[in-house]
Amino acid sequence: MTGSVLSLGLPEAVPLPGLPARVRIHEVGARDGLQNEALPLPVEVKAEFVARLAAAGLRTVEATSFVHPKWVPQLADAEQLMPLLADLPGRYPGLRLPVLVPNERGLERALAHGVSDIAVFASATETFARRNLNRSLEESLEMFAPVVARAAEEGVRVRGYLSMCFGDPWEGPVPPAQVVEVGRRLMELGCDELSLGDTIGVATPGQVTALLAALDRAGVAPQRLAVHFHDTYGQALANTLAALHFGVSVVDASAGGLGGCPYAKSATGNLATEDLVWMLHGLGIETGVDLEALAATSVWLAGHLGRPSPSRTVRALTGG
Amino acid sequence: MTGSVLSLGLPEAVPLPGLPARVRIHEVGARDGLQNEALPLPVEVKAEFVARLAAAGLRTVEATSFVHPKWVPQLADAEQLMPLLADLPGRYPGLRLPVLVPNERGLERALAHGVSDIAVFASATETFARRNLNRSLEESLEMFAPVVARAAEEGVRVRGYLSMCFGDPWEGPVPPAQVVEVGRRLMELGCDELSLGDTIGVATPGQVTALLAALDRAGVAPQRLAVHFHDTYGQALANTLAALHFGVSVVDASAGGLGGCPYAKSATGNLATEDLVWMLHGLGIETGVDLEALAATSVWLAGHLGRPSPSRTVRALTGG
Repeated sequence: MTGSVLSLGLPEAVPLPGLPARVRIHEVGARDGLQNEALPLPVEVKAEFVARLAAAGLRTVEATSFVHPKWVPQLADAEQLMPLLADLPGRYPGLRLPVLVPNERGLERALAHGVSDIAVFASATETFARRNLNRSLEESLEMFAPVVARAAEEGVRVRGYLSMCFGDPWEGPVPPAQVVEVGRRLMELGCDELSLGDTIGVATPGQVTALLAALDRAGVAPQRLAVHFHDTYGQALANTLAALHFGVSVVDASAGGLGGCPYAKSATGNLATEDLVWMLHGLGIETGVDLEALAATSVWLAGHLGRPSPSRTVRALTGG
Repeated sequence: MTGSVLSLGLPEAVPLPGLPARVRIHEVGARDGLQNEALPLPVEVKAEFVARLAAAGLRTVEATSFVHPKWVPQLADAEQLMPLLADLPGRYPGLRLPVLVPNERGLERALAHGVSDIAVFASATETFARRNLNRSLEESLEMFAPVVARAAEEGVRVRGYLSMCFGDPWEGPVPPAQVVEVGRRLMELGCDELSLGDTIGVATPGQVTALLAALDRAGVAPQRLAVHFHDTYGQALANTLAALHFGVSVVDASAGGLGGCPYAKSATGNLATEDLVWMLHGLGIETGVDLEALAATSVWLAGHLGRPSPSRTVRALTGG
């Protein structure tokens, strides 16, 4: 860790008109990232990872998933992990530790741990719904309805993930009207926030703006949206910039670029949080994140995973 | 090479208002890329590389440098390479094959090969001028004056490269007024085009817009500018998008992301042409490039270099 470029005052903060003053980063490395890693990590390492992310200033750290262990064995230790994180919200005021829940059974397990935030995972396309969730798009929405309703009763915030919003590896381009329809229904179920996922990383900035405009016209304002871009084709930051211009101020990212998409032939997947923070700080946008501490965390985790981080910023700052 | 995602109609073309309809890509892989590669390539491979780039639709392909072989041994074969490229402009109407020249001696060598386009390489900072060119910034401009004048006499187009426009590894942030001053002087010498280089890859979109605005106020319009971004911190495409919004329509890129910056601790350097083309085609912007043929060329060259391309698009399209 040299931090030499950071110590020179780089990136220099030069704002662009019309962008938000502050962005909330929804850190997905511990859940979305680790669920795509072949190597399972000890639960104590996962707990330290989440604690380090919080210590680096991240205030929304998705922690794990209460999906059946048969489907995601990498996150089968959710029950063991949650007690190890119990003291973090007290140490870091405002810290949120959302967990993914697939159904009512998963929600009950999560509620038993006193979670304040959950997420459900839907698809904008029929093919991916059937392949990933093993049910039709309609059936998946029916499955989520009681989950979202019960969470609301308990005062738990709900994020709806909507995947394949910009392209599908079987269907090709996805019509914005179709994404709007599914997104609108997720919001009507009671989701507080909708995260638009470019699961295979094919989107470009014009598509992003067009979908955000279509959602806005349908009553889903950018203030209720998050964007979730993948760097499979290197487009994630350009797409993020387009979304910021439209008023989106919640951005999903994964520390060190952890994870990937099993349906795209590439090692690169999630937008790396460090690359995002570099751009946001360069734009004078507050994130609360200590970039040096975050990059050090990604290097530390890369050591446990036995391979270097794919994040360009991590590699440039640490020589990794 | 599967091309499956491309054959699905991805990236989908969705324009953004206010962007140029067409972008001229200034391909720098054969010069800027190969001069930073440790492994020297046979001159026949270089010639085939340039020919393949032209066949893939690129119409500005910087071919080599007439710098003294002592300084850039990787390009010491410029005299041997040029005759091997002589038939290309006849085969591809409109093809330009610029060469870098450091001084009058280099220019005379280039003119002997009938070049139509040259480039000179200046620095926006004093430290980099002294370290890279071994003379003061003022002395380097004095050195270029007769080169540009003589090129103009011969009807040869001149591009001025201006490096370290957004940050310097020794000086930190670079004041836009300083970049404007050096850039304005290069244009006054008679350069036809100015390429703004982010040599260490630290720029973010607000900086890009601010510098373009400062140059515009000083009489250097975006129509005379090119941008040359590095992906060291993953920012190159977001910066390119900001430059397109400002009216820039010439973008430098390197096939497969070839090359890098020896002053930044990272394997990643130049913006990969394939990543750029993915974004431009997604925005409905014409480039004339066949993305599949270009990615195949980068994979072919990577085989000669013995390491995979760092381009995300190349890796995603080819499984490399």
